[in-house]
Amino acid sequence: MDPLPKSPLAPERFPDMPEIAGVELKTGRTGMKYKDRDDLLLMHLPAGTSAAGVFTKSQTASAPVLWCRSLIDPKGGAAEGGRLVVVNAGNANAFTGSFGVDEVTATVKAGAKAIACAEEQVFVASTGVIGETMPPDTIAHVLTERAAVNDTDDWFAAAKAIMTTDTYPKGAFAETEIGGAVIKIAGIAKGSGMIAPDMATMLSFIVTDARIPSSVLQEMLSEDAQTSFNAITVDSDTSTSDTVLLFAAGTAGDHPDVTSLSDTHLRAFRGTLQSVLRDLAHQIVRDGEGATKFIEIQVRGATTTDSARKIGMAIANSPLVKTAIAGEDANWGRVVMAVGKAGEPANRDRIAIWFGGHRVAKDGVADPNFDETVVDAHLKGTEILLEVDVGVGRHAATVWTCDLTHGYISINADYRS
Amino acid sequence: MDPLPKSPLAPERFPDMPEIAGVELKTGRTGMKYKDRDDLLLMHLPAGTSAAGVFTKSQTASAPVLWCRSLIDPKGGAAEGGRLVVVNAGNANAFTGSFGVDEVTATVKAGAKAIACAEEQVFVASTGVIGETMPPDTIAHVLTERAAVNDTDDWFAAAKAIMTTDTYPKGAFAETEIGGAVIKIAGIAKGSGMIAPDMATMLSFIVTDARIPSSVLQEMLSEDAQTSFNAITVDSDTSTSDTVLLFAAGTAGDHPDVTSLSDTHLRAFRGTLQSVLRDLAHQIVRDGEGATKFIEIQVRGATTTDSARKIGMAIANSPLVKTAIAGEDANWGRVVMAVGKAGEPANRDRIAIWFGGHRVAKDGVADPNFDETVVDAHLKGTEILLEVDVGVGRHAATVWTCDLTHGYISINADYRS
Repeated sequence: MDPLPKSPLAPERFPDMPEIAGVELKTGRTGMKYKDRDDLLLMHLPAGTSAAGVFTKSQTASAPVLWCRSLIDPKGGAAEGGRLVVVNAGNANAFTGSFGVDEVTATVKAGAKAIACAEEQVFVASTGVIGETMPPDTIAHVLTERAAVNDTDDWFAAAKAIMTTDTYPKGAFAETEIGGAVIKIAGIAKGSGMIAPDMATMLSFIVTDARIPSSVLQEMLSEDAQTSFNAITVDSDTSTSDTVLLFAAGTAGDHPDVTSLSDTHLRAFRGTLQSVLRDLAHQIVRDGEGATKFIEIQVRGATTTDSARKIGMAIANSPLVKTAIAGEDANWGRVVMAVGKAGEPANRDRIAIWFGGHRVAKDGVADPNFDETVVDAHLKGTEILLEVDVGVGRHAATVWTCDLTHGYISINADYRS
Repeated sequence: MDPLPKSPLAPERFPDMPEIAGVELKTGRTGMKYKDRDDLLLMHLPAGTSAAGVFTKSQTASAPVLWCRSLIDPKGGAAEGGRLVVVNAGNANAFTGSFGVDEVTATVKAGAKAIACAEEQVFVASTGVIGETMPPDTIAHVLTERAAVNDTDDWFAAAKAIMTTDTYPKGAFAETEIGGAVIKIAGIAKGSGMIAPDMATMLSFIVTDARIPSSVLQEMLSEDAQTSFNAITVDSDTSTSDTVLLFAAGTAGDHPDVTSLSDTHLRAFRGTLQSVLRDLAHQIVRDGEGATKFIEIQVRGATTTDSARKIGMAIANSPLVKTAIAGEDANWGRVVMAVGKAGEPANRDRIAIWFGGHRVAKDGVADPNFDETVVDAHLKGTEILLEVDVGVGRHAATVWTCDLTHGYISINADYRS
């Protein structure tokens, strides 16, 4: 099939992304699915790099996810740190049984040998077709022979190599400081375009030159993923392969030791990391299949933050809410319905709802002052803000999604592979 | 807008449905939304009728649901039994605050007065637009004045009066026996067509002439709803108004007393009731907005029945599975994904999947003997069977859904009210 047109919600351009000292980027070709482009990313990290990761909660996770999970203690991060990340696009190596495990083992062994590190320091991720076994040792062969591998050190090329049905490459970069030392954070991501029989997978790899132990890195990533990658949804379907890895190379200028998440000199870094994670997460939503509107959903007045997040996700995953916004219809009745189905505390007679800052409902009924022309004008735009107060507490959460359009059906039903 | 075309999955015709002795059906016009048709159903039940009900679990349930819930003990059914059911179509009386409660109160008072029964014996249900208050006492006025009320005693007219965006009226009838006495069971339902700003609501009312106490009736309905109305899904969205009421009028020929669910002479009745409930539930799915395929999903090999049902619903609610079937694509990878996201026990390497009885995957990989032409032929039909063995236990469950097509988007996004 023809490539999909670039999402109308895409950022204007790929950001300027400087190198991270000590981190080498290479891309290569496996020749598996995408014959005319690089489909393999190798990220070579310096000795001493610490690592953290969060993964899909799927009960049918792919072989690469199972390997990465085994390297990461959910409380302590990667005991051995990370030296190499190997990512391929085009074959997810999911639901491939023992063949899939063998492929991961071969890749890890070849990677460890190629750069002389421990196997436990090699991370792998795969995205693409599910249920198709790769020709044996495909990736290992590229690693061993270094055939068709380009030293690129270019984040744009790296982000492009891991695309599947993405309509644009996704990157984010920011500078911050720790104890006065300049610190860089660079990240790339892919996700949310789907073509039968492919499956959208969210992958993201973030590297900083700060020196932060794996345990602190892990705590930070686990917490911040909640308000970035775990606060987005396109169609409620969970991939078998979702993987987010965060590495700290420790190659920046000298800075004070970081020993815990509560270190005050970590404050600026953390805020910047959050903005990078959120930027990448938003870019995935903006490439949601068929998306024509980017929707921010702010829920407040909930009994807990988790409750607010669940209500937000119930709204964000509701086909009726998503189609109403696609139709530029301020259908707050469907929002009430979605609040109700979340199963979380909410006071039906105190719910208030705003579109684009304009209140359309309050105290359990339509707002008598609701000006339809103002709300309609907001809904005709591409950046939609939906606020909901559920009227029972003081906690809030924000989630992001896109609308549900004919484009989604076309991509996932009409096209055949 | 023009009425939607009749669903291609509709039954050929409305069934023959004899009267239930002692039960009077009337339809009327409120003049609210549907000006040129009856939009009100009155079901008048004889003294001594016992009653049971199950309702939406929504936290933002409508005023009529809150009233009905107050009459029904989830363990014991309706203490006072039921004498009158008042159902209107066109206005859901949901998210209407104290106005909605007042409307229900007025309707109940007028109904009780009209037939000289207790207010606690009057059940109400509303379906249609959400968030719009009715003109005060609209339904009470019809009940009091008996203006525009037709004594119809015709299930077809009754089923038509409660339609909103349904493309056909839904009814089911069966005969059975208790201790040799002939027993009738008749039911009607509405649901699953949606138009902005309406919301699909599932309503169903079932009446038998058997003599069964409310407590047994309630136990039976609560249990059997799990394998009928609670085992269907169109788009995962839960209405604020879902209501299923079951009445036993006790007007059949003499039969042995029924005192508990385990009475052996209740066995035939129960099997027949289940088939009536399932028939009505299936008719709702067959009228799912935009549906072109009716999908039965059988999950087995699960650790518990509840776990099997949750896995089945995760598959049935997956937009990726539903679009794949719309596209006639045997995309079992998406089925695996949906099993994984259910969060229930499953053995990735023992999962097996069949379409139309043909195995496409086993032991965690594609079935090498999978004959694509046979499976493709099955998927081109309108009745799709998907079987999944998750490989960890001995429990099973079946759920039903429809595919997700451009028709769904058109109905819910393109049309404006």
